[in-house]
Amino acid sequence: MAIERIVIFGTGLIGASVGLALRSHGFAGQITGWDPDPAELAAAEASGAIHLAAQDPIRSARESQLVLLSGPVFTILEWLDRLAPVLQSGQLVTDVGSVKGAVCAQARGSYSLVHSAGFLAGHPMAGKEVSGAANADGDLFDGATWLFTETQESRSMHHASRALADEWRTWAEKFGCRVLDLDPARHDVLCAWVSHLPQYLSTALSALLEDEFPAKDEVLPIGGRALREMTRLGASPFSMWRDVAHTNTEAVAASLLALEQRLAHLRENLKTPELRDEFERANRFRSMMTPPKK
Amino acid sequence: MAIERIVIFGTGLIGASVGLALRSHGFAGQITGWDPDPAELAAAEASGAIHLAAQDPIRSARESQLVLLSGPVFTILEWLDRLAPVLQSGQLVTDVGSVKGAVCAQARGSYSLVHSAGFLAGHPMAGKEVSGAANADGDLFDGATWLFTETQESRSMHHASRALADEWRTWAEKFGCRVLDLDPARHDVLCAWVSHLPQYLSTALSALLEDEFPAKDEVLPIGGRALREMTRLGASPFSMWRDVAHTNTEAVAASLLALEQRLAHLRENLKTPELRDEFERANRFRSMMTPPKK
Repeated sequence: MAIERIVIFGTGLIGASVGLALRSHGFAGQITGWDPDPAELAAAEASGAIHLAAQDPIRSARESQLVLLSGPVFTILEWLDRLAPVLQSGQLVTDVGSVKGAVCAQARGSYSLVHSAGFLAGHPMAGKEVSGAANADGDLFDGATWLFTETQESRSMHHASRALADEWRTWAEKFGCRVLDLDPARHDVLCAWVSHLPQYLSTALSALLEDEFPAKDEVLPIGGRALREMTRLGASPFSMWRDVAHTNTEAVAASLLALEQRLAHLRENLKTPELRDEFERANRFRSMMTPPKK
Repeated sequence: MAIERIVIFGTGLIGASVGLALRSHGFAGQITGWDPDPAELAAAEASGAIHLAAQDPIRSARESQLVLLSGPVFTILEWLDRLAPVLQSGQLVTDVGSVKGAVCAQARGSYSLVHSAGFLAGHPMAGKEVSGAANADGDLFDGATWLFTETQESRSMHHASRALADEWRTWAEKFGCRVLDLDPARHDVLCAWVSHLPQYLSTALSALLEDEFPAKDEVLPIGGRALREMTRLGASPFSMWRDVAHTNTEAVAASLLALEQRLAHLRENLKTPELRDEFERANRFRSMMTPPKK
């Protein structure tokens, strides 16, 4: 294996989980970490997700073969911008951001050129409603899908960077992931439906219940598993999802509008045979879904 | 303990789970079962949820101290109607239906009178998206809330029926439930929000995804825990939820409309500071929710 020096920018939930997954799956090299929040950085170091905290992130990036960008999309975009001029061919930058169109657009023209570092956009479909290195888990990716969005640019990166990119894809597999390739635009549309819509829906439902029931002791004891599940993502942090809302606006808005219309349709058909058809469609969708690996 | 002979009408998921819970919590009497579906009845008998299958349900009801009505709301309403003339004071009928206004209205005038059986309406806030005795679980109620909706009628039932009702409430506690009393109308409004809305929402989301992605292999591998959770109830059977839609229409429609409006509000504010406020409200709601007992 060629990758011996990795730096993780953003040692929160996902970044620290990648560090833990690398170590528990046999990565023998050195993992450096950096986070704007000193507490997150210290927590990642204490848990063993990183070997050491970077004093100077730019210098750590220069000295690493692979730079992993983790965190809110705007933070990833900013690091792509800052790192492009200081890295060089033969290095690889990859990310784990929730939106890929904006990230790939940002990398275009400053990565994967003859004299620049390569960039491979990635997105593991795993997460939690809680954030931070303290909640990191080296098994978080086991059974998940790790999406990559190769582009015309990424396919023509320097051969030394490409070797790192190919090795990185095998690490995702070692973590227990199914690796899939998607076009960045299609990625953003599909993720709007299966990830972003469930998040904003759970936020809206939780916020609605918060307003509807100022006295929580009336409603909370009654709620069972259904309520807990449907509002679990209501605990998700705004910082992550503000950036998704800003960088995947069109696809997210389209999926929200479609759901609004669907709810109205169901509401107008509570007492008609159409309700049976909706349940049958829903049953069919679920029957296609295989149980999770764990 | 006075209750020695129980008959369970409807030995599906909830009815059979009550049978299993009774036996695993020390009920020493006899449990008879009846179900319109011979396979469900046989499965409940095979699992030990009931001691024996009734040959003649009316006769079994006559010979029991406690008749438990389980199943879709309209089925419960029908049994209330059929059993009223054949039961007598000193017996107790209780139910586990999802809607209480219609059930209490049906019992009014034919139960809890001087010469009639008593009726106590109940509703354990536990369930699964899968139905049937094969999925029954004696621990299903552990940590849940069992709601009762006592009414002016139930409070004046025959003292011998009342003794059975009071004992039945202690059985719910033995199953691990927190027992709460609610007015039937308030029950239906609260359950519309915390139980019925999550169900119809999950059905609408699942049906929408079914239509949106005819080729499931594109979308299913990408979906993670968020998608699985938010669509889990999409597997729920129409038969149960048709009856809820018909008997709690107004409250369900009001909660659906409120959610539609909330989603539109969020959609229109994907790029404004109002999105932060929605996440903060949602975070606040979740912070009030204690983790489940199991």
